[in-house]
Amino acid sequence: MSINLTQARELLARANRMIANEGVLDAFGHVTMRHPADPKRYLMSRSRAPELVQPEDILEFTLDSQSVKPTDVRLYGERVIHGCIYQARPEVNAVCHHHAPSILPFCISGAELKPVYHLGATLGEKVPFWDARDEFGDTTLIVAKPEEGASLARALGPHWIVLMRRHGATVAGTTLEELTFRTVYTARNAALHIQAHTLGHVSPLNPAETRLAGEYNLRPGPVARAWEYWNVRLDKAEGTWRSQKPKAIAPKKPATKRKTKRRR
Amino acid sequence: MSINLTQARELLARANRMIANEGVLDAFGHVTMRHPADPKRYLMSRSRAPELVQPEDILEFTLDSQSVKPTDVRLYGERVIHGCIYQARPEVNAVCHHHAPSILPFCISGAELKPVYHLGATLGEKVPFWDARDEFGDTTLIVAKPEEGASLARALGPHWIVLMRRHGATVAGTTLEELTFRTVYTARNAALHIQAHTLGHVSPLNPAETRLAGEYNLRPGPVARAWEYWNVRLDKAEGTWRSQKPKAIAPKKPATKRKTKRRR
Amino acid sequence: MSINLTQARELLARANRMIANEGVLDAFGHVTMRHPADPKRYLMSRSRAPELVQPEDILEFTLDSQSVKPTDVRLYGERVIHGCIYQARPEVNAVCHHHAPSILPFCISGAELKPVYHLGATLGEKVPFWDARDEFGDTTLIVAKPEEGASLARALGPHWIVLMRRHGATVAGTTLEELTFRTVYTARNAALHIQAHTLGHVSPLNPAETRLAGEYNLRPGPVARAWEYWNVRLDKAEGTWRSQKPKAIAPKKPATKRKTKRRR
Amino acid sequence: MSINLTQARELLARANRMIANEGVLDAFGHVTMRHPADPKRYLMSRSRAPELVQPEDILEFTLDSQSVKPTDVRLYGERVIHGCIYQARPEVNAVCHHHAPSILPFCISGAELKPVYHLGATLGEKVPFWDARDEFGDTTLIVAKPEEGASLARALGPHWIVLMRRHGATVAGTTLEELTFRTVYTARNAALHIQAHTLGHVSPLNPAETRLAGEYNLRPGPVARAWEYWNVRLDKAEGTWRSQKPKAIAPKKPATKRKTKRRR
Repeated sequence: MSINLTQARELLARANRMIANEGVLDAFGHVTMRHPADPKRYLMSRSRAPELVQPEDILEFTLDSQSVKPTDVRLYGERVIHGCIYQARPEVNAVCHHHAPSILPFCISGAELKPVYHLGATLGEKVPFWDARDEFGDTTLIVAKPEEGASLARALGPHWIVLMRRHGATVAGTTLEELTFRTVYTARNAALHIQAHTLGHVSPLNPAETRLAGEYNLRPGPVARAWEYWNVRLDKAEGTWRSQKPKAIAPKKPATKRKTKRRR
Repeated sequence: MSINLTQARELLARANRMIANEGVLDAFGHVTMRHPADPKRYLMSRSRAPELVQPEDILEFTLDSQSVKPTDVRLYGERVIHGCIYQARPEVNAVCHHHAPSILPFCISGAELKPVYHLGATLGEKVPFWDARDEFGDTTLIVAKPEEGASLARALGPHWIVLMRRHGATVAGTTLEELTFRTVYTARNAALHIQAHTLGHVSPLNPAETRLAGEYNLRPGPVARAWEYWNVRLDKAEGTWRSQKPKAIAPKKPATKRKTKRRR
Repeated sequence: MSINLTQARELLARANRMIANEGVLDAFGHVTMRHPADPKRYLMSRSRAPELVQPEDILEFTLDSQSVKPTDVRLYGERVIHGCIYQARPEVNAVCHHHAPSILPFCISGAELKPVYHLGATLGEKVPFWDARDEFGDTTLIVAKPEEGASLARALGPHWIVLMRRHGATVAGTTLEELTFRTVYTARNAALHIQAHTLGHVSPLNPAETRLAGEYNLRPGPVARAWEYWNVRLDKAEGTWRSQKPKAIAPKKPATKRKTKRRR
Repeated sequence: MSINLTQARELLARANRMIANEGVLDAFGHVTMRHPADPKRYLMSRSRAPELVQPEDILEFTLDSQSVKPTDVRLYGERVIHGCIYQARPEVNAVCHHHAPSILPFCISGAELKPVYHLGATLGEKVPFWDARDEFGDTTLIVAKPEEGASLARALGPHWIVLMRRHGATVAGTTLEELTFRTVYTARNAALHIQAHTLGHVSPLNPAETRLAGEYNLRPGPVARAWEYWNVRLDKAEGTWRSQKPKAIAPKKPATKRKTKRRR
């Protein structure tokens, strides 16, 4: 779908706020997308909690994570996470870096995160681990230097999510909608994985199921259903949703017969 | 209670939104009911998150899960789950398929889900398991083909809920209200089961208690109390609830004496 | 504090809604109080989810749990839980029966619930267990018969909370405010107890600390602070709270100097 | 940043409400700050749930925790926690005492709380434990006497958070913003620590990482991002937030091209 820059900034701002509204992002983390007209640029907000990002916050960056226009606003310190992945993966057009509460326990414990239900197949068949200590020793754990971003992109490899030891995760997608779907459902999967672990035994999807279910759930139908759902929930949270045909107090007696109007 | 089609579409749309509001359904899953005038048909929404379903989204299907009227709207891919159960079980008039976060850990771990408190007795005396792999090998895990739906209905047998390995659960009821009660309280039961398990020991209801408590809680009184409660909570969530005699800031001094008016 | 019947009905309705708003009660359970003018009566709502109870729902009962006035509205099936405790314990003036999600795991597992922080000292030094099976064999688990209520009251003995196997808990207090404080904070204590258990070791308050801390926290100061807090939260949830001096978007620059007005 | 007393009371009241809104404080606990013009005084609300604190509730205290002006309003019983720390630590200008649900399990179990992700590095390199029993035997567990507050301050030592056995935690900061950041993120860290523990293995930040990451995250950029985020969330919770350029129902078709106005 060909969209212009204004539309892209609107969509990207909403994606930031949607993923925050679903509990995956808090004050930190970010969602970006490749520039719709120039594969050598990407779009990212100035430094601001994702829940607050508006279209006018969205700036353009080169793949070296330099702001295209001179600016004095504060920028995200971990831009290189995104720029390096866009460089390494031409088919990736959206990236999310987060510290989701359900995924961090895996980043902390080193336990392997596996797809445990069909919607978690969006993890992909392998979930690589990246530990900043391996290459860089003791650091702030913030991925701020180009060599750190490049190292992380190498760890991501051809996969769709990489766990970052003692830090969080970074997710990739071929579209913003796919990226959003994968980001939310891999977090849901992680939460279920932890709960199943407490019951004593986790039996995940096998590689064939992971491939088949991952493909199925990233088709237009499922992605569109979830995208509409999260969009409406965002509007509800922001007070801009108008209920379709709102009802007053739940009727105790069945409603009387009335003409049905096809309303969409 | 005899209701017409318009009333049924209204009730079914509300049941979808109520069960979603109680946290059992998210973007995926569905709630259906048998057609009030024709046992060879059932009612189901077009493909849409349950939280968003409105009466005008409700379509009619044959028990073979074909849309009665020609339509170009997107339909739920797993219609056969419902159609096959309505075929197999003449006394069932409502079905819910969900991926509830409290029940999925049982679907993932294979641990047996048992009734652990009186409201969980609505599970029934046995909770069968269905694993798509047994009959169909590696699949998308989506129950889309008639033979898959028929297999699941066989696994459900004469029981009231079936767990679907690595997927979710499907619940049946003789009325929409009973189906809703069972759907929510089996999910609550599952959450408590997991917590009790972490404390070290789970002692469930025995078969006689399960039968007695299940019967008691599905009587009109308890079902009506919960139905009113969930309906009002839905209205509150949708902004269409008007508080009865709203009070301002909590009074610090007792209110003065006033005439009580019998209001109901 | 001497209050009249109208004030009592208002307070009791609010206590029902407050405790529901704090997550301790859902569709089921109830909060009652002894009649302010007649110790041989108690006040209880008709059968309705606690979150929905209004003053006009409150009816009067004899200690035998008979409605004082003839009525055709549906009554709570488990009235005898309250009537029997009011008979057995002259100093008790309020009772709550609930199925709190944090306390039920103890009812299910049989693990001993202990005070693990100072606010949990309101449990009292001993938390008795009652299992309907012991005296009554297989039942619906509902405490509906006078002999069942009497058995539960015997198990409560001189204590302040009794756990009911595979069912829930019943809490007593000398005032409605104390009952509310104990109900909420014993539930909070139970949640913390479960979490501490997962970390490996639970070291509770000793009996002297339990007595000292329980006494301290049930003094007027702490009880009043929590009572105001829960009341305001209820008003917020019901849309009847007006913010004191509401501020618009959080100021980025410090406010300019202004005259302070004593506003209370 | 030099602020006057009126501004300080406004900020402190908001910090109380913000930390409550983030789930760290409930009916109990308090947030204070050193008087902006007089290091021998500190500011603290009268006794009230933090979620309800308004600027006019803020009173001035000497470091001996005596109210500067005569007053008959009820005061917090545990003032000495704050006064003693302000006496012992000249560089500390804000203190929070809380019973956060994620941190209390550590206070109950005695398990060592460690920084498990970069934002948890704000714990500092050591988290001391204080047990009132050691010096004072059986108490109410309330820190009300000067000698108890002094004992706690000694346990805090040069560190930034002290866990109080069977009670809660006390956090210190050099500014109110830093105190808020540390209070919230140490609580988030504790929650993740518990979850990682259930997965089987917790590998924390090493001391160098703790120092580097702690420093990084307490720089102006990260603190300002979180401060804005929590402020807006508070305004949303209090109904005083106006969405920037609110959108109606989520657009299904991309928006048409429009002039971008730089709005901030």
